Amino acid sequence: MKAKELMDKDFVYLNAEDTVVEASIAMEHVRRFTCPVVNDNKQLIGWVTAFDITKGLREGSEKISDVMSSCREVATVHEDDPARKAVILTANNKFVTVPVLNDDNQVIGMVRACDIVELLSNLYDIKVESLYKEMQNQLKGVTWEELMSASALVSTKTTGKKITAEEYEANIMNATFGEAIWATGGLEKFFAGLISVGEMVVARRVGRAKK
Amino acid sequence: MKAKELMDKDFVYLNAEDTVVEASIAMEHVRRFTCPVVNDNKQLIGWVTAFDITKGLREGSEKISDVMSSCREVATVHEDDPARKAVILTANNKFVTVPVLNDDNQVIGMVRACDIVELLSNLYDIKVESLYKEMQNQLKGVTWEELMSASALVSTKTTGKKITAEEYEANIMNATFGEAIWATGGLEKFFAGLISVGEMVVARRVGRAKK
Repeated sequence: MKAKELMDKDFVYLNAEDTVVEASIAMEHVRRFTCPVVNDNKQLIGWVTAFDITKGLREGSEKISDVMSSCREVATVHEDDPARKAVILTANNKFVTVPVLNDDNQVIGMVRACDIVELLSNLYDIKVESLYKEMQNQLKGVTWEELMSASALVSTKTTGKKITAEEYEANIMNATFGEAIWATGGLEKFFAGLISVGEMVVARRVGRAKK
Repeated sequence: MKAKELMDKDFVYLNAEDTVVEASIAMEHVRRFTCPVVNDNKQLIGWVTAFDITKGLREGSEKISDVMSSCREVATVHEDDPARKAVILTANNKFVTVPVLNDDNQVIGMVRACDIVELLSNLYDIKVESLYKEMQNQLKGVTWEELMSASALVSTKTTGKKITAEEYEANIMNATFGEAIWATGGLEKFFAGLISVGEMVVARRVGRAKK
């Protein structure tokens, strides 16, 4: 995924000649705490946050050029950069928004922290059930009951807490991938459990074939 | 994970009697675009964003009570709620922060979108290599070379593009879980590929055992 696929296009440009008052109204209107300042060619020349605006209003600054940061202080991503780059910038610097530039240094969008949250949290929302369905699909000829029975055994062995196939099924029917990795202690452990289940199912199938 | 484990404690309270000017300075100082307004018992009574502040400064409002939203309009989470609840609120409403309350309705922290990004993105940063190591660990007696060779075969079969075990290994050594699920088309597909690899490895082991 590229930065341009994740960015929000619903933002406002400010101009260095805009008044602080005008800018404050525009930012309230679109509800954006941060805004790029651009030249007539829409190229990034500066950056304004609501903090620059409140300070400017308090101190009677007139123009955006009086309150903006230089574009040299602004972290940006290129539209074709991996979306991941914007995610890392946001996580490491606690940014609210990261501007997205094209080859001509024009601002074409903004990656917002809330959009990243939405994107990343989708992964966590995937149902554990759908991962099991995929496992069943890959391990051809395996029944759902066999999967649940093997899972209950692996879970009992791992946690030391006895659980039946039916109880296991009831658990995963309500669980998301995010809950499962939190409950098992991380992606690797969750994954290890599933591999064990797959291995047990294959071993049983081989055992049956021998008979 | 609970909301209180994810929340930021470095925030400012505002009081309804604070002046808009004082509040603006405090918010600039801690660099927070949103602030809870509390009573003397630190219970949530309202909410202020930088938009309320800029409007207030422009229009000459004096007190925070003149510009704040009512606490009835503020989405909150309880400290013992699953962190997930704050994540969903943030994703669905494009919030920057969600206040965290205790049983007494006191504000004890704020869950920020950027903190959620940091938390969620950690999962994406897990190395594919570590998942393979886990797989090797679970499938006792399997060598790394066998895993890579099986993976290359599964990948060639799935994508129709021939890849050697060495090329496959070079790919995963630089890949993260996030890149892998984007490259394969989603968690389920990535997972299906790994199950196929595990299955092939087990089948080969069974084949060897028979000889």
